[in-house]
Amino acid sequence: MPEKERKIVEPRAVSGFPEWLPEEEREFQRLLGIIRESFEMFGFSPIETSAAELLEILESKGEINKQIYGLYRPNAPSEERETEMALHFDLTVPLARYVAMNFDKISFPFRRYQIQKVWRGERPQKGRFREFYQCDIDVVGHEILDPLNDAEIPAIIYQIFKRMEIGEFVIRMSNRKIPQGLLEAKGVSEEKIPDALRMLDALPKTGIDAVRKQLLENLALEKGIVEDLLSLAGISGSGKQVLDQIALRDLDHPLFSEGRSELGLLIRNLEALGVPDSAFEIDLSITRGLDYYTGTVYETFLKDYPELGSVCSGGRYDNLASHFTTRRLPGVGISIGLTRLFSYLLENGVIKPTVPSGTKVLVAVLDRERLTDYFKAATALRKAGIPTEVYMEQKKLKVQFKYADRKGIPLVLIAGEAEFAEGVWQLKDMRSGEQLAIKEVEMIERIKPLI
Amino acid sequence: MPEKERKIVEPRAVSGFPEWLPEEEREFQRLLGIIRESFEMFGFSPIETSAAELLEILESKGEINKQIYGLYRPNAPSEERETEMALHFDLTVPLARYVAMNFDKISFPFRRYQIQKVWRGERPQKGRFREFYQCDIDVVGHEILDPLNDAEIPAIIYQIFKRMEIGEFVIRMSNRKIPQGLLEAKGVSEEKIPDALRMLDALPKTGIDAVRKQLLENLALEKGIVEDLLSLAGISGSGKQVLDQIALRDLDHPLFSEGRSELGLLIRNLEALGVPDSAFEIDLSITRGLDYYTGTVYETFLKDYPELGSVCSGGRYDNLASHFTTRRLPGVGISIGLTRLFSYLLENGVIKPTVPSGTKVLVAVLDRERLTDYFKAATALRKAGIPTEVYMEQKKLKVQFKYADRKGIPLVLIAGEAEFAEGVWQLKDMRSGEQLAIKEVEMIERIKPLI
Repeated sequence: MPEKERKIVEPRAVSGFPEWLPEEEREFQRLLGIIRESFEMFGFSPIETSAAELLEILESKGEINKQIYGLYRPNAPSEERETEMALHFDLTVPLARYVAMNFDKISFPFRRYQIQKVWRGERPQKGRFREFYQCDIDVVGHEILDPLNDAEIPAIIYQIFKRMEIGEFVIRMSNRKIPQGLLEAKGVSEEKIPDALRMLDALPKTGIDAVRKQLLENLALEKGIVEDLLSLAGISGSGKQVLDQIALRDLDHPLFSEGRSELGLLIRNLEALGVPDSAFEIDLSITRGLDYYTGTVYETFLKDYPELGSVCSGGRYDNLASHFTTRRLPGVGISIGLTRLFSYLLENGVIKPTVPSGTKVLVAVLDRERLTDYFKAATALRKAGIPTEVYMEQKKLKVQFKYADRKGIPLVLIAGEAEFAEGVWQLKDMRSGEQLAIKEVEMIERIKPLI
Repeated sequence: MPEKERKIVEPRAVSGFPEWLPEEEREFQRLLGIIRESFEMFGFSPIETSAAELLEILESKGEINKQIYGLYRPNAPSEERETEMALHFDLTVPLARYVAMNFDKISFPFRRYQIQKVWRGERPQKGRFREFYQCDIDVVGHEILDPLNDAEIPAIIYQIFKRMEIGEFVIRMSNRKIPQGLLEAKGVSEEKIPDALRMLDALPKTGIDAVRKQLLENLALEKGIVEDLLSLAGISGSGKQVLDQIALRDLDHPLFSEGRSELGLLIRNLEALGVPDSAFEIDLSITRGLDYYTGTVYETFLKDYPELGSVCSGGRYDNLASHFTTRRLPGVGISIGLTRLFSYLLENGVIKPTVPSGTKVLVAVLDRERLTDYFKAATALRKAGIPTEVYMEQKKLKVQFKYADRKGIPLVLIAGEAEFAEGVWQLKDMRSGEQLAIKEVEMIERIKPLI
């Protein structure tokens, strides 16, 4: 007999808005936990901003982001349909608005982390998401922020990616003031410099010839300057080497010197901060493209998956909230796009989700007259901090074992008439298949070492 | 001199989308953590669904939710402006869609928790939010779900609200089958029953006379039936009492008996599940209004703040995803609206945020020639699991102390020339003002007991 007449809508998710199965979600949450704990370990405080911002806030830069999702109320009276709001497309504009708005209520330097979803109306394609997590930290100063802050960031990146155990990685760094100082020293005009730095940033992707051509033809820079810039950008390697090579360039220009000194400060402290030589690389071609960054810049690559591009990037900026306040708020920050990274690691088998449940013990139910005994056992286990389920359905023990197996629950506690009479439980280890009798009074201490 | 000419936009948040200061956010995260850990302790697995659903999914019930926020792309070419998507307004429709969609990939009974923001286009007013967190659990069965599952839910509610330490609370429960069974037994027509139960639910708010009037006049129920129903609804108290009183009503009707037996099963197991008598109350007037619920129903009240209404509610339902699949998926679940609860507790001083930072130690910097020593100390502390900051700005020690004080950092480590020469650090306890010298080699063991 068919069920009651009703319209069935095919259950579909929206494309570009990723969702995970429970065993995948557990892994995702584990990585989020590592990121959160690492941020906290370095003294960052959590904030969360609203998912929506006023359109005037999001468009404050004057540029209109083509990808924003506006909010409207399809079922409201027509005069209430418009909301003047849109979902945030990153966490930087919201941070700027939050800091400007709460300036008097927060203390500086303001060290905050923020782990939230952001939304962008991308065309759906592989590896592009319309909804994704960003995990950001920023240190924001008032008027001034010591360059020393830049030095600590690689240590945070290092901690996170080491703890994630997703393979070898390298943190690549530079300081934009160095190539910018060179260009200024050579008399390149102010408006050409951002373009030149953007072109330079493409070096690893497009190669030196393409970049040279662009600088010469599109930007009409002098040949000598182009070769100087490319030779500077070619400097890469371990910290000490790079500093020596930069020092060889006897360029007496304040911005160049400042960049060199900031980079030196960063490099000299990495070891004390626990970042080994093998985990970082200085590469003066890196500029991160955006004019927003004004000094130190960071990128992070997985050595086994260079095609993934940078998985954690950021840098130093002069002024966070120039659109919302006349106060100068310099800062330094990084962002991890966890959704894209996670999706890639999952697809490539680097992360292998196996266990959908965090439950450690399943209390099987054999005799429904003794329910309170099963519940008491579960309550005692939970009190001892052991996540526990009681099997509630009226099924054979075999089905209960199968349930534990499918959910990855390692231990099953069993008791029937005989066991209750003796005050013992049978403990089955689902991993080995072994079963042993344990006294009720010893339950906790016998189970703890097995989980 | 004024800063560079630019347009300043007033930094405003959107109304009804709450945001917290860092010290408040820390408290919010603490409560979220308690909820998450408690859900995990009872074997629930996390899932997260996309913030947006297709309109056809959200409107699958046929009713159109007046409060939904649709998404559009204000800056896209006109043919791409519409998205056919809207933000979810609860986590129930998304759960139904997720379970129907992933039916073959998940195991049943499916125990999931979900902690996410939801959005509703409410008119802004005090205590009403347009963006808020819901913390949901559900146990979803395939075809059948044992009533025993209902019994465990109060234990989860109890654990959460006990751990939150926000005052005394009471979990109020009923089973809709009992009043519904009575009405069926008395021959009340099927279409009148949902209305009658809805009217009954208003009893604590509007009082018995108002409900009687409604039942008699608006629903035209017979006087005898109304009095029977009101007398049944008047039954409340501890578990045993209530069962005895219900048993006195010698009503031979299958639904009534089922409800009574389910309520009995629930009550008899509460003690074994660690829920004390003082924390629950059976009240047969509770029906939760919604026809969606078909059996056990739960509400939770803070004894000191009854005006807040129920802070954790839910119940048993017959069929989760009838709009998305022909499979029958009965379930039981609860939801905590944490944003509203938190906002209320904050306003009433029940939660007093004091510490914006989780940092336990601030390493003061006195001598910038010894930066690596300061960083090494911080790195060692972090390795030992102690959240640590190094003070980066070039400021006097007094300013560094003030920073620690404002951020609630309890300990400051200080070393200058003399200390470095002797291999000791000065440790200042900001809470007591005491300062003592500790040997560098004993740093970790001396600090651990103080945090």
